[in-house]
Amino acid sequence: MKTVFSSLQLNHRPTKEMADGQLVDAVEIPRRAEIVHEHVKLAGFGEILEPKDFGRAPLTRVHTEDYVSFLETFWADWLAEGRDGKEAFPFVWPVRGLRDDRVPEHIDGKLGRFSFDAGSPLTVGTWEAAAASANTALTAAELVKSGDRVAFGLCRPPGHHAGPDYYGGYCFLNNASVATQWLLDQGASKVALLDIDYHHGNGSQTIFEHRSDVLFLSVHADPAHEYPYFLGYADETGKGEGEGYTANYPLPFGTPITPWMDALEHACKRIKAYGAEALVISLGMDTFERDPISKFKLKTDDFPGVGERLAQLNLPTTFIMEGGYAVDDLGRNTTALLGGFLSRL
Amino acid sequence: MKTVFSSLQLNHRPTKEMADGQLVDAVEIPRRAEIVHEHVKLAGFGEILEPKDFGRAPLTRVHTEDYVSFLETFWADWLAEGRDGKEAFPFVWPVRGLRDDRVPEHIDGKLGRFSFDAGSPLTVGTWEAAAASANTALTAAELVKSGDRVAFGLCRPPGHHAGPDYYGGYCFLNNASVATQWLLDQGASKVALLDIDYHHGNGSQTIFEHRSDVLFLSVHADPAHEYPYFLGYADETGKGEGEGYTANYPLPFGTPITPWMDALEHACKRIKAYGAEALVISLGMDTFERDPISKFKLKTDDFPGVGERLAQLNLPTTFIMEGGYAVDDLGRNTTALLGGFLSRL
Repeated sequence: MKTVFSSLQLNHRPTKEMADGQLVDAVEIPRRAEIVHEHVKLAGFGEILEPKDFGRAPLTRVHTEDYVSFLETFWADWLAEGRDGKEAFPFVWPVRGLRDDRVPEHIDGKLGRFSFDAGSPLTVGTWEAAAASANTALTAAELVKSGDRVAFGLCRPPGHHAGPDYYGGYCFLNNASVATQWLLDQGASKVALLDIDYHHGNGSQTIFEHRSDVLFLSVHADPAHEYPYFLGYADETGKGEGEGYTANYPLPFGTPITPWMDALEHACKRIKAYGAEALVISLGMDTFERDPISKFKLKTDDFPGVGERLAQLNLPTTFIMEGGYAVDDLGRNTTALLGGFLSRL
Repeated sequence: MKTVFSSLQLNHRPTKEMADGQLVDAVEIPRRAEIVHEHVKLAGFGEILEPKDFGRAPLTRVHTEDYVSFLETFWADWLAEGRDGKEAFPFVWPVRGLRDDRVPEHIDGKLGRFSFDAGSPLTVGTWEAAAASANTALTAAELVKSGDRVAFGLCRPPGHHAGPDYYGGYCFLNNASVATQWLLDQGASKVALLDIDYHHGNGSQTIFEHRSDVLFLSVHADPAHEYPYFLGYADETGKGEGEGYTANYPLPFGTPITPWMDALEHACKRIKAYGAEALVISLGMDTFERDPISKFKLKTDDFPGVGERLAQLNLPTTFIMEGGYAVDDLGRNTTALLGGFLSRL
């Protein structure tokens, strides 16, 4: 299995985030990617490639043009406004009753128009890192499209919370959705996007919920009690032509491996029944029992079995790294899961 | 002219706010109300009364029941969750594509569900202060209803950004809207709500924009360039039955008194043509040239003329204090405007 990674992805270096009602130290830090990179190398899974540059076109297949332009030029615009902070936070949002049909000209208005939380500062290197992360996802998808049974896009920053035109939840470009759309654009007619991050993949769901060519499934903490709070309930099953092609498995705090695997089993059966030609996995490792911001109880020894089950789907599989904040354990947990997958090929 | 004020309104004591992309010192501080109180006393306008307690009923005429309950119990709920911060900030919001049809059970989900910005921390005394501020508005309205030509509700925290079910912009309960609705409920059939704060009164507009029994007018900085960014454009003229009963006058940065008065004149003519039986004024003093967060150029000497013009409407008038952050000048600017009004009675 080849892994794709670029050190440009480390250039997003936030120091603070707004979480739990306070400004606290950032948890989505470059070290996350470094430790996974080190463990993939140690595990000897195979070559580690630099991503190719796919340009803007695959990004604007799932994100709006104005959103991508906003991210691309934000830091220069911020400096041009004379702002000197090391990171920029939005602070006002167009919720119900407020207008989102016009983009404010002011930079603080744009920040709110193109985001949905205050937990994801923009920094000098955010665009470069996010674009590299999306290219990593695309390069992994291309390996699979070219015949590899499986590839690992070691994406960071993560992507699954980023919607068509907003960032949030540490996510700027929706790497897994960009890869999924790219596979469709290359000829696949049905792709399953399975999200096993602890948090619901609200961005991915929103991007695909109106469509039947992507089956989106997510196993995650119940949003009534956990971020992102406003999507990921079991009654969301898709919209319009997409009705029946969204499946959410919200689980309570404290969920250990057995009920978690029951939900995964259900999701796998849905993928089989759907007849997916390819599988993209949003691989969050924050289901781990010692994750500092999460509340499931999966253990390191549980992860190989997860990988094994995913391999049994017998589909061309692109793994896309998402969350996981127990940094010291993140490398070995990730390779435990991927190793389980590889053991069943 | 009687003034209404309660020292309970000082119990909201934020220390920080999120503004301009950074966590900065709070500007909506208790001293604002104290200095206005001192200057009203010095000016000898008349008696300063404590507000009566009107209870919850007038609040839920413009706010939803679940929102008022949220505000009322928030701090106890926050402590019950084991949170120890001195102030609570929301950090994730249900923007487009995300659901607002169910209220999350988690306290951080509720914070986002019931707010629209990160600039307005909730503190131990927020509910007590906000409820007192609404009672101050109601007591002032009652004085006018009882025959006084004019009354001044020295409200603080302010209110005009608070919507039917969200806080933000330093506002929790929409004092001016609560007073307006109370006047209607007491028998008025048409009330004009004129907002002359530097910032658009998005909460008030949202509360009344579907209705024809309130004419809402706002003279403010262009939201394309200024907070609240997502409402207050000139093309918003009301919705449904309220079509034609909303009027916005967005003005550019740097606006001095002459073009500002032109907009006010236009608004006054609309009020006359509407045939309002009573006038409620959202009195923001942040149009002042040295306001630290605002960019209009009105001078202290300009304010008496504003009051004079408002008096010429010859309507029973309830002044409701809103913004104004040049604290050292806030008292004299407020009494300058009110004094101008009183000089024409």
